[in-house]
Amino acid sequence: MNGATRQLPGRADHAAVRRANLAVAVRALRAGERSRAQLAADTSLTKATVSSLVTELAGRGLVHTARPTTTAVDAAPAPNASNARAGAVGRPGQPVELATGRVLAIGVELNVDYLCGVVLDLGGRERVLTRTAFDVPAGVDATADEVARLVTELADRALADSAFATANDPAVLAGVGVAAPGLVDGTRGTVRVAPNLRWRDVPLHDLLADRLAGHVLPWLPGESRPWDDRLLVDNEATLATLAEFAGDGGPDERDLVLVTGGVGVGGGLVVDGRLVRGSGGFAGEVGHLAVAPDGDRCGCGRRGCWETLCGLGALLDLAAPPNDPVHRHDLDLDERLDLLLDRARNGDERTLTAFDRVGRALGHGASMLVNLTNPRVLVLGGYFARLGEFLRPVVESELAARVVAPDAGGVRVTLSRLGLAAAATGAAHAVLAPVLDDPTLVPPLTGQASTAAQSPTSAVPETPTLAEEIG
Amino acid sequence: MNGATRQLPGRADHAAVRRANLAVAVRALRAGERSRAQLAADTSLTKATVSSLVTELAGRGLVHTARPTTTAVDAAPAPNASNARAGAVGRPGQPVELATGRVLAIGVELNVDYLCGVVLDLGGRERVLTRTAFDVPAGVDATADEVARLVTELADRALADSAFATANDPAVLAGVGVAAPGLVDGTRGTVRVAPNLRWRDVPLHDLLADRLAGHVLPWLPGESRPWDDRLLVDNEATLATLAEFAGDGGPDERDLVLVTGGVGVGGGLVVDGRLVRGSGGFAGEVGHLAVAPDGDRCGCGRRGCWETLCGLGALLDLAAPPNDPVHRHDLDLDERLDLLLDRARNGDERTLTAFDRVGRALGHGASMLVNLTNPRVLVLGGYFARLGEFLRPVVESELAARVVAPDAGGVRVTLSRLGLAAAATGAAHAVLAPVLDDPTLVPPLTGQASTAAQSPTSAVPETPTLAEEIG
Repeated sequence: MNGATRQLPGRADHAAVRRANLAVAVRALRAGERSRAQLAADTSLTKATVSSLVTELAGRGLVHTARPTTTAVDAAPAPNASNARAGAVGRPGQPVELATGRVLAIGVELNVDYLCGVVLDLGGRERVLTRTAFDVPAGVDATADEVARLVTELADRALADSAFATANDPAVLAGVGVAAPGLVDGTRGTVRVAPNLRWRDVPLHDLLADRLAGHVLPWLPGESRPWDDRLLVDNEATLATLAEFAGDGGPDERDLVLVTGGVGVGGGLVVDGRLVRGSGGFAGEVGHLAVAPDGDRCGCGRRGCWETLCGLGALLDLAAPPNDPVHRHDLDLDERLDLLLDRARNGDERTLTAFDRVGRALGHGASMLVNLTNPRVLVLGGYFARLGEFLRPVVESELAARVVAPDAGGVRVTLSRLGLAAAATGAAHAVLAPVLDDPTLVPPLTGQASTAAQSPTSAVPETPTLAEEIG
Repeated sequence: MNGATRQLPGRADHAAVRRANLAVAVRALRAGERSRAQLAADTSLTKATVSSLVTELAGRGLVHTARPTTTAVDAAPAPNASNARAGAVGRPGQPVELATGRVLAIGVELNVDYLCGVVLDLGGRERVLTRTAFDVPAGVDATADEVARLVTELADRALADSAFATANDPAVLAGVGVAAPGLVDGTRGTVRVAPNLRWRDVPLHDLLADRLAGHVLPWLPGESRPWDDRLLVDNEATLATLAEFAGDGGPDERDLVLVTGGVGVGGGLVVDGRLVRGSGGFAGEVGHLAVAPDGDRCGCGRRGCWETLCGLGALLDLAAPPNDPVHRHDLDLDERLDLLLDRARNGDERTLTAFDRVGRALGHGASMLVNLTNPRVLVLGGYFARLGEFLRPVVESELAARVVAPDAGGVRVTLSRLGLAAAATGAAHAVLAPVLDDPTLVPPLTGQASTAAQSPTSAVPETPTLAEEIG
């Protein structure tokens, strides 16, 4: 009912408008550097407004306007603050560039047999990527210890690398996102049910807060464990969907379904540009769609769940005998999949038959998702993408046969380019998003106070700061 | 990118703001009469703005402010225009009431063996409801003739009844919505595929425009058939979902799944308050989910589609031999369902077994929708609602067993209260919505021109009028 009142001239909340405009400017600059005049044209804002926005963003260390003298590959600012400071008073024709290193975000995926860690910068670019084999079902505490170790290592590496890692104006950590394969109560960060990990009601947020508070997450006092969404835990497929959606695929991404294959099968929906989370955050539980009423027993206790037909376990069992190295949990999954790909490319009958059966089962379930939501794009993620050259044609033929709408509703089947890092990448995007929505969460540069004060329009509103700065 | 610029003071489009505020006022008044002061409080608009909005709405015949002297049951205005005109200059303490009879909308559902017609008023209330047995698959032209006859009859009846049906200021027909059971290309109003009607690529919009142009739809010239969304054709389950969503169920309706049973089974999703239409308008095609891989042949040519297990045909075949009156297409469906309900309430074994089997199949498919979208509410519509006392408990137990999220994700199973009129009601809502979004589509009352001109704020912007007025 109040929706329209925001638009009333004279009644708008000026601080909210300012934050929204800063966000518009930052998002525009994520697409690449541009002059203030171009920025004004791109955003439909006046040149005076853009000028004032750029001044404030520079004051927070989020843009720099003088072209860096170093030959940095990406848009990270030159490693001395005076350069960035010069930007705040730069000439209108000078290009404005996002100072991507000013804000970093960490994402971690824990899955059945690996941990994956990613650091993204403000531009959404990957700065660090790491994946290690780890037996997560072996223990909750051991897993929490290992995730905490990984996060600490990532934070140390990323902040040390960052161009902003100086004594006065260090980079800011937007937060830590953690992806888990199971039903997650996102408001508490509790893993409610994760059949493949054999976890039930694991308070992962609190376990990690215990281990990270004070040091990596300085805004969390060590003695208590308050809920804080800068330490976020969510379902891995939901976060992977966020990562696909945060990419650069254009309008196609406004209506997509992701199906991602691992030991479990996860899914995510984007409808009209928005991620579908469900009323309790449990949307996208596609792995347990009852597609084969009399099928095999699933890890969840039911029979005939979709993932019993096209999860990683089903594929490996079909493709190779138990003593084959593709079953070895201590090998990185990418290597094991490479073995299968080699065999298939060499015409190995058993491997090809396994790919065909898994592809048909994948297409069967996918046809249900397509009938239900009529997406523009079906993205195959996880191991489905790695084996995409074999699986995609089979999926496409199943969709053609099973989807009611003409031409399968026009759906295009694509392969995720994020590989096994999708969920971790999405987790990092998730904690980066609040900063993109409200750049005033980033504290002003300490050296910038006087410059900022010169212009009345760049006065920094009193907002909660994002985080203590990490030295 | 331009989203935030709308909020910039001084840059807002004043005409758009005005339309949005008129819409806010009309929607608030749909909930019941209130004083200008209450309206201001409810909408967060200033009293001066509300006063000006009320004056303009009165000038368009959309509200009246003097309490009617008649004892009309609903909020229709007193049947003379001077009364409504008095409202335009009424005192601030007087209640403002929606003049619901000023705008009417017609909705028609054509289905396998019946036609249903509904007239809604501006308040969304049903003014006329009619349903007749009709053999739609028997012929496209015969069906188009009959639908046109029904629409003409409804328009004549509704406009004759309307309090505004005077020579100077008649009621305005917002449009005609038509619901069809199949895949509809909503941008052209073509029924692409409707297996149960045996229709393929039927240009229903154009067939109806031919028959209604000039007379019932005076804005459509008879000699051409331009596309016009005031004559709208869409999928019946999509429109039924719109009707559920347009009800008064509050926040629950922001995340709902509708499953509606007839000869086919249709579905609709509302996610976070928005109807999911899909990239090509084909979302919600749940009837052909492949739930039983080796099942019976479906009307669509595939095997084991969900509707072969819980569509009306499956129920009737399970419940009674072929010569039983429940199979008689010339009887109204409600009567046939009453026969079954009587038998079940009297403990008839065959009927109860049929209900149980259909309920289990319904629950099986519904569990997929719930796993995928985690809705707050699952609404059973169509014949499922009529048999709800027997089907709902079975569906609930299937959901409890099959949904992965704890407590079935918190979903509540409800029965549609719209009965077999849901799709027709939704079709009428669909053509009413543009008027609610922009009340300036309704032309000013002819007797009001001078009054409107007295106030500068009530000047009527030059917008396309909704329709020629119907004499």
